[in-house]
Amino acid sequence: RRRGFSESVFCEGKTEAQLLAIAAQLDSKSPVLFTRLEESLAQQISLAYADQPFSYDAVSKTALWGERPAPDPERVVAVVTAGSADIPVAREAERALEAEGVTVLARYDVGVAGLHRLLAVWPDLEAADVIIVVAGMDGALPSVVGGMARQPVIAVPTSIGYGAHFQGLAPLLTMLTSCAEGVGVVNIDNGFGAARLATQIVRLKKPHARAGGA
Amino acid sequence: RRRGFSESVFCEGKTEAQLLAIAAQLDSKSPVLFTRLEESLAQQISLAYADQPFSYDAVSKTALWGERPAPDPERVVAVVTAGSADIPVAREAERALEAEGVTVLARYDVGVAGLHRLLAVWPDLEAADVIIVVAGMDGALPSVVGGMARQPVIAVPTSIGYGAHFQGLAPLLTMLTSCAEGVGVVNIDNGFGAARLATQIVRLKKPHARAGGA
Amino acid sequence: RRRGFSESVFCEGKTEAQLLAIAAQLDSKSPVLFTRLEESLAQQISLAYADQPFSYDAVSKTALWGERPAPDPERVVAVVTAGSADIPVAREAERALEAEGVTVLARYDVGVAGLHRLLAVWPDLEAADVIIVVAGMDGALPSVVGGMARQPVIAVPTSIGYGAHFQGLAPLLTMLTSCAEGVGVVNIDNGFGAARLATQIVRLKKPHARAGGA
Amino acid sequence: RRRGFSESVFCEGKTEAQLLAIAAQLDSKSPVLFTRLEESLAQQISLAYADQPFSYDAVSKTALWGERPAPDPERVVAVVTAGSADIPVAREAERALEAEGVTVLARYDVGVAGLHRLLAVWPDLEAADVIIVVAGMDGALPSVVGGMARQPVIAVPTSIGYGAHFQGLAPLLTMLTSCAEGVGVVNIDNGFGAARLATQIVRLKKPHARAGGA
Amino acid sequence: RRRGFSESVFCEGKTEAQLLAIAAQLDSKSPVLFTRLEESLAQQISLAYADQPFSYDAVSKTALWGERPAPDPERVVAVVTAGSADIPVAREAERALEAEGVTVLARYDVGVAGLHRLLAVWPDLEAADVIIVVAGMDGALPSVVGGMARQPVIAVPTSIGYGAHFQGLAPLLTMLTSCAEGVGVVNIDNGFGAARLATQIVRLKKPHARAGGA
Amino acid sequence: RRRGFSESVFCEGKTEAQLLAIAAQLDSKSPVLFTRLEESLAQQISLAYADQPFSYDAVSKTALWGERPAPDPERVVAVVTAGSADIPVAREAERALEAEGVTVLARYDVGVAGLHRLLAVWPDLEAADVIIVVAGMDGALPSVVGGMARQPVIAVPTSIGYGAHFQGLAPLLTMLTSCAEGVGVVNIDNGFGAARLATQIVRLKKPHARAGGA
Amino acid sequence: RRRGFSESVFCEGKTEAQLLAIAAQLDSKSPVLFTRLEESLAQQISLAYADQPFSYDAVSKTALWGERPAPDPERVVAVVTAGSADIPVAREAERALEAEGVTVLARYDVGVAGLHRLLAVWPDLEAADVIIVVAGMDGALPSVVGGMARQPVIAVPTSIGYGAHFQGLAPLLTMLTSCAEGVGVVNIDNGFGAARLATQIVRLKKPHARAGGA
Amino acid sequence: RRRGFSESVFCEGKTEAQLLAIAAQLDSKSPVLFTRLEESLAQQISLAYADQPFSYDAVSKTALWGERPAPDPERVVAVVTAGSADIPVAREAERALEAEGVTVLARYDVGVAGLHRLLAVWPDLEAADVIIVVAGMDGALPSVVGGMARQPVIAVPTSIGYGAHFQGLAPLLTMLTSCAEGVGVVNIDNGFGAARLATQIVRLKKPHARAGGA
Ligand SMILES: Nc1ncnc2c1ncn2[C@@H]1O[C@H](COP(=O)(O)O)[C@@H](O)[C@H]1O
Ligand SMILES: Nc1ncnc2c1ncn2[C@@H]1O[C@H](COP(=O)(O)O)[C@@H](O)[C@H]1O
Ligand SMILES: Nc1ncnc2c1ncn2[C@@H]1O[C@H](COP(=O)(O)O)[C@@H](O)[C@H]1O
Ligand SMILES: Nc1ncnc2c1ncn2[C@@H]1O[C@H](COP(=O)(O)O)[C@@H](O)[C@H]1O
Ligand SMILES: [Mg+2]
Ligand SMILES: [Mg+2]
Ligand SMILES: [Mg+2]
Ligand SMILES: [Mg+2]
Ligand SMILES: [Mg+2]
Ligand SMILES: [Mg+2]
Ligand SMILES: [Mg+2]
Ligand SMILES: [Mg+2]
Repeated sequence: RRRGFSESVFCEGKTEAQLLAIAAQLDSKSPVLFTRLEESLAQQISLAYADQPFSYDAVSKTALWGERPAPDPERVVAVVTAGSADIPVAREAERALEAEGVTVLARYDVGVAGLHRLLAVWPDLEAADVIIVVAGMDGALPSVVGGMARQPVIAVPTSIGYGAHFQGLAPLLTMLTSCAEGVGVVNIDNGFGAARLATQIVRLKKPHARAGGA
Repeated sequence: RRRGFSESVFCEGKTEAQLLAIAAQLDSKSPVLFTRLEESLAQQISLAYADQPFSYDAVSKTALWGERPAPDPERVVAVVTAGSADIPVAREAERALEAEGVTVLARYDVGVAGLHRLLAVWPDLEAADVIIVVAGMDGALPSVVGGMARQPVIAVPTSIGYGAHFQGLAPLLTMLTSCAEGVGVVNIDNGFGAARLATQIVRLKKPHARAGGA
Repeated sequence: RRRGFSESVFCEGKTEAQLLAIAAQLDSKSPVLFTRLEESLAQQISLAYADQPFSYDAVSKTALWGERPAPDPERVVAVVTAGSADIPVAREAERALEAEGVTVLARYDVGVAGLHRLLAVWPDLEAADVIIVVAGMDGALPSVVGGMARQPVIAVPTSIGYGAHFQGLAPLLTMLTSCAEGVGVVNIDNGFGAARLATQIVRLKKPHARAGGA
Repeated sequence: RRRGFSESVFCEGKTEAQLLAIAAQLDSKSPVLFTRLEESLAQQISLAYADQPFSYDAVSKTALWGERPAPDPERVVAVVTAGSADIPVAREAERALEAEGVTVLARYDVGVAGLHRLLAVWPDLEAADVIIVVAGMDGALPSVVGGMARQPVIAVPTSIGYGAHFQGLAPLLTMLTSCAEGVGVVNIDNGFGAARLATQIVRLKKPHARAGGA
Repeated sequence: RRRGFSESVFCEGKTEAQLLAIAAQLDSKSPVLFTRLEESLAQQISLAYADQPFSYDAVSKTALWGERPAPDPERVVAVVTAGSADIPVAREAERALEAEGVTVLARYDVGVAGLHRLLAVWPDLEAADVIIVVAGMDGALPSVVGGMARQPVIAVPTSIGYGAHFQGLAPLLTMLTSCAEGVGVVNIDNGFGAARLATQIVRLKKPHARAGGA
Repeated sequence: RRRGFSESVFCEGKTEAQLLAIAAQLDSKSPVLFTRLEESLAQQISLAYADQPFSYDAVSKTALWGERPAPDPERVVAVVTAGSADIPVAREAERALEAEGVTVLARYDVGVAGLHRLLAVWPDLEAADVIIVVAGMDGALPSVVGGMARQPVIAVPTSIGYGAHFQGLAPLLTMLTSCAEGVGVVNIDNGFGAARLATQIVRLKKPHARAGGA
Repeated sequence: RRRGFSESVFCEGKTEAQLLAIAAQLDSKSPVLFTRLEESLAQQISLAYADQPFSYDAVSKTALWGERPAPDPERVVAVVTAGSADIPVAREAERALEAEGVTVLARYDVGVAGLHRLLAVWPDLEAADVIIVVAGMDGALPSVVGGMARQPVIAVPTSIGYGAHFQGLAPLLTMLTSCAEGVGVVNIDNGFGAARLATQIVRLKKPHARAGGA
Repeated sequence: RRRGFSESVFCEGKTEAQLLAIAAQLDSKSPVLFTRLEESLAQQISLAYADQPFSYDAVSKTALWGERPAPDPERVVAVVTAGSADIPVAREAERALEAEGVTVLARYDVGVAGLHRLLAVWPDLEAADVIIVVAGMDGALPSVVGGMARQPVIAVPTSIGYGAHFQGLAPLLTMLTSCAEGVGVVNIDNGFGAARLATQIVRLKKPHARAGGA
């Protein structure tokens, strides 16, 4: 498998027929992650491949098909969100991490307009190897987290907002120009991509395992 | 005088001759603020109007001509900056506040990438009636200040930054989409405008004085 | 309560289940403002919490739950609009002001293309402590109001317009570059934010009351 | 001559040699307008063509070579500016009008932030057949003029401003989305183009003269 | 009536109730133009005001209520389009011209990709006092017309196009930077505004009539 | 050599030392094209490599080092410009064509604002296999040429213009949305790229020769 | 026929009545291509013109009416896509090529994130005269193909993507700034335009045939 | 030290006096990195602090003051560039890595327009723990590297390019929308930020060392 990841299928804009055709070609021995999958389509696919566990998550619109690996306690990625409206993107990241056997630590709605919320969860976050920060609106949270954390920080802007937010442009620019050092940014709403980068990072901790896992 | 303010002259793009002509028409009895004034031009103007005190501030490129009113201890505006490169814009705001007899409380370089810096100055800021927050780069500071403050917060994006900063667009959008409630935004690098708005706000505390001061 | 305001819930993009859950956690003793709430959802929420007064305003898509404080005659905010299509945004501001006990003075459809309309209502506006100006299209009204007013002016661009209006970008830029001194700008269609800033400003008039009201 | 206008040469980016070559091909019997011409280049050209009157205007960076027609009192175009920094663009328009024998009525610095200034000159403007409005910053003046005038209004945005002004984008969008009916807009800083359009309009008053003048 | 025009009502975003209320306040003695009016709403309005002629045009989504003035043969405005998809915008302009008694000369689908089409209709256009050019896609037609015409040219960009057209931005910029001298531009899809400007221009031909018509 | 072209060196932003080092590695047996080369640097390079012919063209800022192949009369590319200010970009294209042995047919200043100019040169252009159209300002020329030509048309937007031209964005969008079928567009000011594409196209006429020439 | 192509009809935004009217005027002796045609409308048109073969392709939303010419084996255009979501745009190009008797060689889903896929199909592509590369997301494929190919390369950005993709802006800019020499770019999703340019290019191989085919 | 990094000073826009003052406050016991430092200023600073080693690199405009730690052979970061013009940004990253004791593996000018160049260096890159990819122009290189690499990939867009490149916007968007999974992006020209992120990542390999190194 390419780059040591399990398969993923980006479902947006694909018809049921196309998705069934893709699924038919997939290797049922390893987990497959479907992203941006509408619930009605998920049901069709699950019917067709009833021999394998198939779990659909309506919040993130993702489906995981096949056996999910056990979470590795030595590979921990925290996922935090600024608001509750950012949770679907965060959940997409979490599902992609879980598909790779990464342990997830999620904390939601800790945006900077109420700093006490972030400070309250901070001790938990310290245990993580990598922190993924998901934020819409002004996208200010990664700057604060990035200023506090010793771990690599991955920032995900979301399309949550209106007006001068321009569908996520505002938090995207905020994150790219962050005054915190060394924040890596992915595309707007791309929880999946953040999870992939985080997975590659935590694999560095036990490279032998990485080789074995691929 | 229009809206109860002392006169101000925006000098960018004006020749020495134009500025001297404008100055000749001004009322020497009340203070005049020159903004965006190059030092060499300031010297020419100060020579021509030697009868009045003339103070030039090279950091903010402002000159104050005439007697400055005593700062009113009941009208206090705090001016904070995220970085030290934002100081020229902050100083422009301070000079415009001073010209109106407003007491200024300045704290620089307290950006969110090092949160302890903001927390350290916070007790001082609580004494202010209004807080002006000046920030370039990601422009995240007003969101944090706005989440903590009970006072009105005025945000000034600056052109300090590069790349996806787009000459101040990044912090401008950040501030407009701030997740903190009720932050008022002015134009990029517009310390003067922030000061004018703050002055009008603090005048509400003693409206009679406002009438008298106009 | 954070910053001395009553609670608010931004409902856009939230499901009925989510909104009922949020409402269940709210303190019924103080008023709660729901913004961007569709009428059908409002009905569901009002049924569930029938023990408290619940008023829904279809124009602004806001609901106020709980006892509204009496308007304070010493804290007056004027809300003016350029066109009649801007009224929903103005109404959102008014509802947020009313929830905090601020007296509202509303004048609609006084845009600059018919200057006599603004001049006709001007004497009324002079009584206000703060003026909120709501305008779409060219967004020129705050420049004219800002040039006449001694009070703080808060400008709200709206998404009313088409073509080169770019969903509110045109009036947003107009307001940020206003030739009137010291106009504070909030996000496109953000009547709520303008009201929050105005509320903080009028509280400066009687700070003791502010402390008490929080 | 194309479209009945005298010749014009846009000089920006052309070398002295190129300009001399162009000038050598021009018909010295009718006036020629050079726009965006630096003073040093103007001197070289005037030396080479000393047989004809040559007037250079440093404010608008235009030169008029050859006999200028007498201004026609029945064809009057008003040129107004919002600020004094817009005067160079206004002067370019005036020079192009004068080259075609149009009578110019100029009023500067009547921007909407001080409405009394516009109202003071309004009676003068009523005599004009067309009104050209030149404005930078927020570009709000054409909306007010357009709401008052019965004559055709041509709006010229200028590059005067900073920050969210984006080199003239702000007033350009303002003018295109003007709430006044039927304002025609030309390019940023294009005083020349506004004058050309105005000239074609005033020629409609006496079409026979137009034919003769071509 | 403001600026000598008959009344107009911009209907986009207004409810049936709002439109009926507006119509009830209108003066039935002079024509009223409704623009951007959906057919179903037009039927409701026509029922309510059956005492006056009411003509709805489904192409331009405009309704004219009241007696239409006879077209004045000495005031002629040509309306040309680049493609057939631009016709709705052209028709809006024509309806607004007809409401003011201006004679309309319409020629469609003469875009520059087939130059013979424009040349074929050119002799007809020469009879017009003003030419309105409506174009989407690349918006190149006004440059060619502007280079040929002695009359004032008004350019209307349309939202017809896709991709790098950006909802009309492409032809808008083309028209603003036109290499033809003196083209006046209005907002994207604003046929109404072009007609208003053209009407003011043709009124200059017989100013006495203008005074009388107001 | 890659793709059968002679070597080229893009000199912008390279120091004299870097350019000399690059030149030292080049194969003196085949021609080398230097683009965006300042005259002073060209002189240094020509001194160092005096054994080979070295021709510098100040208009296009290109240098050709080594023997230039004879122009092939069966491979003809026309290069036309809208204005004279576009000539430097056109010349860059011509130089790159000449370096590959392509015959060039150049016609300048035939923009659409004076259509007779294009029609006058049209018979000449018919002889070309490919037409490169270089245009700044509104970028309308490729639409007209593309509507008339049977040959492939390559459009090059230039940075010539101001205001809403946005450094070439206006003609770039015009060309991408051209109503003429099948115009290929290259980057702003990229005469070199247009020439490369044209060269590949004309090589299709005699593929055997192409193989030989590589 | 203009430029030697068979007729084409761009159907987006046209009603059934308009399309039937257009079809009624078309010459049934040569093929007609309908693009952006919804399936339901296609059925209506096919019923009305049952005398001629009519093939509808639901993937590209194109219909071909009339006899399709036999593919010419000496005129071969390859069409490659980066992803499977780009296939509709690729198919539009293929249909337009087929209508002109060009042989099509299609290879899908060979994007650069899995380079082996491109290398696997490369030998096939070498047989083509022209390569059309269709890519959404990052639009990187034409740079790689352009660096390998001796043939002319035409790049088509697609609107497939999200977030910072901005409806195709991202791949459009990528292709315009491609580091490969001489890639011609067409509008976002404009498979048709790419085919037209490719057809003109391959006709250069046998110009006599081109004359005959027109 | 914050986040376990040595000190760094961003020098752009700071005067000599400011830099000397900052330097005077720094701890001479650990290395300090100055970025965006002009050579003349570097000399002044080196004179003032002659007691410590001071190395200036003119390519990246960085200075390293104090003892540099020995490179750790178990922490290896590769830095690759698409073109030679991207080297200054790459060198900035390298210097920041070296200051933290990370081993650097640099390979330049391996852009995708000549794929053999990347394939030639690929075996070397496999040894790295993280790959930083620096690219201007189209920014396509990270997509290809990201598709091949098992390691985390960090992409740095550069401002190298012109026209539709828009000072780095083109490669920035390319990288954000990369079809390769999990590429982290930093700001345009931000080699420093990429190095910081890479350093945090490689520290995960030996967390104990991380603690010790801080
Ligand atoms: N939610 C997502 N966002 C961005 N990329 C995704 C997402 N889910 C899957 N992908 C990518 O899409 C690729 C599959 O695309 P496709 O071949 O069109 O199914 C995978 O290899 C992933 O790189
Ligand atoms: N109409 C509105 N526009 C912008 N922000 C709002 C609006 N209504 C409420 N808010 C903000 O949204 C926050 C609630 O967001 P949430 O936690 O998602 O319900 C409140 O604390 C307000 O700051
Ligand atoms: N189609 C249109 N496009 C732009 N402005 C219009 C249009 N139709 C009417 N208007 C303007 O809208 C104003 C009426 O707006 P309202 O008061 O909202 O009905 C009129 O006075 C016209 O200036
Ligand atoms: N004027 C130009 N515009 C765009 N690309 C150019 C130009 N001149 C040369 N090139 C390209 O730049 C490459 C050389 O870049 P470099 O290796 O930096 O010298 C050549 O292979 C061409 O692809
Ligand atoms: Mg919340
Ligand atoms: Mg600092
Ligand atoms: Mg109205
Ligand atoms: Mg003034
Ligand atoms: Mg047509
Ligand atoms: Mg010319
Ligand atoms: Mg795929
Ligand atoms: Mg190179």
